[in-house]
Amino acid sequence: MEIFYARRVTTPPTPVSLRQKPGPNQLAVTGIGNAMLDVISQDHHEVFRQLGLTKAAMTLIGEERLDEFYQAMGPTMQMSGGSVANSIAGIAALGGTCGYIGKVADDEFGERFTHDLRTMGVELDIAIAKPHEGATGRCHVFISDDAQRTMATYLGASNQLQVDDIREDLIARSEITYIEGYLYDLPPAKIAIQKVANFAHEHDSMVALSLSDMFCVDRHRRDFLSLVTHDVDVLLANESEILSLFQTNNLEHAYSSLNEIGVLAVITRGAQGADVATFDGVVSVPASEVAHVVDQNGAGDLFASGFLYGLALGADPVEAAALGSLCAGEIIQHLGARPESDLEAMAAEAGFL
Amino acid sequence: MEIFYARRVTTPPTPVSLRQKPGPNQLAVTGIGNAMLDVISQDHHEVFRQLGLTKAAMTLIGEERLDEFYQAMGPTMQMSGGSVANSIAGIAALGGTCGYIGKVADDEFGERFTHDLRTMGVELDIAIAKPHEGATGRCHVFISDDAQRTMATYLGASNQLQVDDIREDLIARSEITYIEGYLYDLPPAKIAIQKVANFAHEHDSMVALSLSDMFCVDRHRRDFLSLVTHDVDVLLANESEILSLFQTNNLEHAYSSLNEIGVLAVITRGAQGADVATFDGVVSVPASEVAHVVDQNGAGDLFASGFLYGLALGADPVEAAALGSLCAGEIIQHLGARPESDLEAMAAEAGFL
Repeated sequence: MEIFYARRVTTPPTPVSLRQKPGPNQLAVTGIGNAMLDVISQDHHEVFRQLGLTKAAMTLIGEERLDEFYQAMGPTMQMSGGSVANSIAGIAALGGTCGYIGKVADDEFGERFTHDLRTMGVELDIAIAKPHEGATGRCHVFISDDAQRTMATYLGASNQLQVDDIREDLIARSEITYIEGYLYDLPPAKIAIQKVANFAHEHDSMVALSLSDMFCVDRHRRDFLSLVTHDVDVLLANESEILSLFQTNNLEHAYSSLNEIGVLAVITRGAQGADVATFDGVVSVPASEVAHVVDQNGAGDLFASGFLYGLALGADPVEAAALGSLCAGEIIQHLGARPESDLEAMAAEAGFL
Repeated sequence: MEIFYARRVTTPPTPVSLRQKPGPNQLAVTGIGNAMLDVISQDHHEVFRQLGLTKAAMTLIGEERLDEFYQAMGPTMQMSGGSVANSIAGIAALGGTCGYIGKVADDEFGERFTHDLRTMGVELDIAIAKPHEGATGRCHVFISDDAQRTMATYLGASNQLQVDDIREDLIARSEITYIEGYLYDLPPAKIAIQKVANFAHEHDSMVALSLSDMFCVDRHRRDFLSLVTHDVDVLLANESEILSLFQTNNLEHAYSSLNEIGVLAVITRGAQGADVATFDGVVSVPASEVAHVVDQNGAGDLFASGFLYGLALGADPVEAAALGSLCAGEIIQHLGARPESDLEAMAAEAGFL
C-alpha cells in the first residue's frame, strides 16, 4: 500500500475567531535562525547569470565576493531578512508576541537587523559575533521580471551561533519554537539546535522546523531525518524540499513517509496553495488570489507566520494554513520579505483575529 | 480679466512614438539636487505625531535628532532617494541617458547613493563633503495607512553643494537641466543654481525647476519668482506649491500668473492627474488608473521623469505629461520612490517609446 492519505481539497475555509492570545509573560513563537540583511535588486536583464548563479536557487558565497556582487547589482533596496526572522516579523505584524534568537556582527548591518525586530516588539536574544567570525550575514536577492528570486548568501556571523549564545528563557515561555534549517550549514549550530529541541520539549514548547532549501536538505538529509523523526512536532517545507528529504519525485510517497513518522506537516505549493498533512489525511488549502505577483521572496516565510501563529492560538492546522495563505498573499505583491500592510487588520477583516 | 486660459480636459491622449533619442554623447536630462538616502517605515500607528511632525509635510531636522528618529521608527527599508535623483533614476529606467550632480559624505550611505545611480548608467558628478559638512543626507519617511507620507529630512552633506562642485560638462551636453527647489535651503547652493541656469542657457539646455515643497516655496518665494521669471523654461509643481508661489488660493489665478510670466508649467494634482499650462491654455491629463495606492512617495518625482524625458525626446507637453502619468502610476503601487517595474517596457507597451 503506497498511499496512506485520503486527499481532499477544501474550498477556502470559513475563518472562525482564533483562541485567546498567550498570557502576559508567554510568547506565541520564538524563532531561531540566520540573522541576515537582504540586499534586493530588480534584475530586468538577469545579471545573476553572469555571476554564475542558478536561477531561483540559493548559492552560498564567501566574504571575498561581497564587493563583486554588490557592484554587479543594480540599485538596491535594503531591509532586514532571514527566513525565520521574516516569519517572526510577520507574527509580530499579526499582533503576536514572539522572540528571536540569532547572531550578528558589531557593524551597521547588524545594528539595523536588531533595530527592525526590536521596534516590532520582538523579544531578542541576539549574540554579537567576535571579529574573526565575520560580518553580519547578507543575502543578495535578484528579482527577475517573472517574479522569481535568485539568491547569493554570505552567511558570515549569522551562522556562528553556538550553544552558549542561546537564552533558554525565551524558549521556555513559547508555545512554539521555530528552527531554521539553514542553521545546519555549520557544525556548532547543529549541536545548538539539538539543545534547543531538547529544551523546548522539557517546557512543552512545540518544535517546528523549516527545511529552508532543497540543496540545504541535500547537504543535511540524515540530520534532518533524525530531527524530524525524534524531535519535530511540525514540519514546514515546500514541494522540492519535502521531495528531497525523502528522495522521491512523488509527493504522495513523501506524504506517506510523513504519516509513518507521525509528524504534522505543511507543504507550500506556490499558486497551488498548501497541503496540510495531518494524521487523518492531506487537506489542500488554496492560495490567496492575487492580482499581480511582484516578488515571491518571503511567500513561504509569511505563510509560516500565519500558520504557526494560528497553531499557537489553538486553531486546527487547516484553519491555521488559511491564515498562512492570507499572509503569503500580502508579501508577494511587493518587493521584500517583510510585510508592508497592517497584517493584523487584514487578518481581523478576514475574520481570523 | 482674471482668467487667461481656456481650460480643456483631455481624454487619455493616444500615445504616439516619441522622437529619436539624443545623440551618442548627448544626455536627455541632467539633474542637480539633494542626494539623500530614504529610510522608509510603514507607520500604522502614526508614530510621526509623537515626534512633532506635520502629516504629509517635510520637516527639516538636525544631526542631533537622527538617532532619536531612527529609534522611534519601526522596521525600515532603505533605498536611495532625493526628489530629483528619483526623477533621474526614472529617466534611466525609461532607457534615457542622463546625468546627476549632487553631494554626499564619505560614508556608507553616500557610497550606496552613488552605487545606485551609477549602476543604472547615470553619468555622475558627485562631490564628496568635508567632514565638518556633515553626514550623507537622509530622509525619514513615515507611510500612513492612507498612503500619505510624512517626512523628516536631515540635509547634511547634500545641501553643501558649492559652485566649484559642479561639472559644467554634463549640463552642456543635456537637452534639459533639472534643478531641485530644495537646494535653495542653503545660501551657497543658491549661487550655484544661478550659475547652473546661466550655463544651461549658454549651451541651449532647457532649464527645468521643481518647486519641491510648499514650505520650501514659502521660505524662498522671492528667489523662486525671480528664477522662474528670468531663467526657467519649464516649471514643475504640485497644487499647494504653485498656490504658495503666487500667494493665492485659486488655481486659475496661479495659471494666469504663469501665462503672464510666459513659462511652460505642469501642475500635478494627485488622483486628478496633471494640468499642463502652455501658452495656448491649460490642458488636463488624467492620472493612471491604479488598483491600490500603497505609497504616494515619488509620484511627483516619477511624473517628472516621464514628462521631462518626453520633452527631451521632442514630444509636445501634453503627450509628455501622459508619459509622466504612466510613470507616476507605477511608483504609487509600492513602497519607495524608485521604480520597481521595467519602465521602459511599460512605456513601450503603452506605445510611447
